[in-house]
Amino acid sequence: MSKFLVNKYQSLEPYTPGEQPRERKYLKLNTNESPFPPSEKAIALAAKEAERLMLYSDPECKELSAKMAETLGVSAENVIMTNGSDEVLNFAFMAYCDESTPAIFPDITYGFYKVFAALNAVPYKEIPLLADFSMPLADLLSARGTLFIANPNAPSGILLPLSEIEKIVAADPARIVVVDEAYIDFGGESAVSLIAEYDNLLVTGTFSKSRSMAGARLGFGVASAALIADLHRIRYSTNPYNVNRMTAAAGIGALSDKEYFEENCKKIIEARAYLARELSALGFSMTDSKANFLFVRHERMSGEAVYGALRERGVLVRHFGAPRIKDYNRITVGSMAEMEQLVEVMKEILEETK
Amino acid sequence: MSKFLVNKYQSLEPYTPGEQPRERKYLKLNTNESPFPPSEKAIALAAKEAERLMLYSDPECKELSAKMAETLGVSAENVIMTNGSDEVLNFAFMAYCDESTPAIFPDITYGFYKVFAALNAVPYKEIPLLADFSMPLADLLSARGTLFIANPNAPSGILLPLSEIEKIVAADPARIVVVDEAYIDFGGESAVSLIAEYDNLLVTGTFSKSRSMAGARLGFGVASAALIADLHRIRYSTNPYNVNRMTAAAGIGALSDKEYFEENCKKIIEARAYLARELSALGFSMTDSKANFLFVRHERMSGEAVYGALRERGVLVRHFGAPRIKDYNRITVGSMAEMEQLVEVMKEILEETK
Repeated sequence: MSKFLVNKYQSLEPYTPGEQPRERKYLKLNTNESPFPPSEKAIALAAKEAERLMLYSDPECKELSAKMAETLGVSAENVIMTNGSDEVLNFAFMAYCDESTPAIFPDITYGFYKVFAALNAVPYKEIPLLADFSMPLADLLSARGTLFIANPNAPSGILLPLSEIEKIVAADPARIVVVDEAYIDFGGESAVSLIAEYDNLLVTGTFSKSRSMAGARLGFGVASAALIADLHRIRYSTNPYNVNRMTAAAGIGALSDKEYFEENCKKIIEARAYLARELSALGFSMTDSKANFLFVRHERMSGEAVYGALRERGVLVRHFGAPRIKDYNRITVGSMAEMEQLVEVMKEILEETK
Repeated sequence: MSKFLVNKYQSLEPYTPGEQPRERKYLKLNTNESPFPPSEKAIALAAKEAERLMLYSDPECKELSAKMAETLGVSAENVIMTNGSDEVLNFAFMAYCDESTPAIFPDITYGFYKVFAALNAVPYKEIPLLADFSMPLADLLSARGTLFIANPNAPSGILLPLSEIEKIVAADPARIVVVDEAYIDFGGESAVSLIAEYDNLLVTGTFSKSRSMAGARLGFGVASAALIADLHRIRYSTNPYNVNRMTAAAGIGALSDKEYFEENCKKIIEARAYLARELSALGFSMTDSKANFLFVRHERMSGEAVYGALRERGVLVRHFGAPRIKDYNRITVGSMAEMEQLVEVMKEILEETK
């Protein structure tokens, strides 16, 4: 840190992305990436667009927004496209939180919410999840402020059914509810269907997971036209060309390839069921994850020990140090072959540490 | 705007990007894009990278930062890569301006500085340029706050020599000076050579203009390791994966193709000289631009009239409504063929309005 940095950022604790080691080749199950390449259509359109990079990207992101809107069954005015869903989440913290409107989110959830609150110098309140990591519904219904709910939640993967989300949104029309659906395509029902009825709902999503485009940085927000206009106002004041030409083209390609998308989601759901069965048989317990990861603890090995043993054997998973979840690891669900490899390695570890 | 938007952003005036009309094909000379495609190496690497989009981009941007550092003759710890140079400029407003450290910039300069100040709720002070749009050096030397100097300046294109930049930086070691070098490659001398000596200097640059990559969104900052650490802290709290895989790959490709880059800069400089001669002969006066645009006014036609007449004939230039510059238009320097076309159209217009 330099002596010039203004006071308000001196104690900022940045987000810690999952490690991306390069010293050896790992089976990477730590950042919830897709094991499948992006759609051939996404690749082809992005590659073609590389030839036109001398021209700015469209600040209105018209073509992609229209395609996104069509896919979701909404109008283009209900959609904003962003540089990853982190960007639209940050915009939501900017637009809808301030001194008198704190951010509200569970104590165990996506780690970036706390960082966004600090970045924007807005107060936040963490609502403790229940002991089984399920959402304390009564607390969410009554909380005052702007709610951020990851659904399915991370790192637990636990899903709130759409009916519960609707109750939370309907509970207080004067309160914004942001539903972060980064993992919704692996078994949840999206709240996008509610935006026509509720003008206090913002749903966010990403192409990083189910559409195999983490490296392209493409996210989106869906809400009433008025909320989307707020977010565009902030976007035009921050980075009007936030989505580059290649990513926009890849997004259009990915959305055109519905079949590939659905097939990949199905494969992940199957691999998740397989992994859950196998790990249970090895003495792991876990939450009921509807995401592309499992959140598991072993009956006799600590979370850190499991993490370390896997790492030593070339498998990366994500371990969080926070007290309530330190016994757990979050394991990305990859391809069946990767899951079989993980199970084999885990068997070896348990054999050796018997 | 929704009723939910927090007070502080309700009066935010977003940046207005140059128009991108789609109703017909224009000769687009309004957003300072390059007329040349990106380097073949950039295209090839970006296209290849599209196949690997399922993996996150490297939050450390190691390979690209190293290549950038090598190109600039600095260390990787002196470099930050961002989603366009707008992003690093915004980070600088965040990191180095607050209630007691206002942003200082000329009254006529890149329009986004004012927006960044408003976005971050920091005070700013505009220093009036002299009547000929040159920099009021004495005022810049004595100003207190964080200085933002576009060099060459926009939309005038006027360049401060490196010796003057150094005087401004050296005048007050307790003050950060940000030198925005978006257009430096078209005839200026970069201040990057000063960062080893001055820890209060941040130089920003972009791949949008001289490297034909406006649509890729790639910018950078160069400074002492301590300043770069500040900016990374903010980046990791905002969007750690800000630079996508394809753009990073294209950046590496572009930096590898020094010959193509230099050739293109040379062509722009030649086309600029041609255009300046021709427009002078047609009754235009102009600033001494060292950028890839000219800033011109006609002896008898208003700025708006020139803009409108060109637009009607399929040529887009940029007209700004601000009182001091309303008689002018900013015209992007394109290829020689484009400049010849522009001159022909301008001759027709002047003939018809005689």
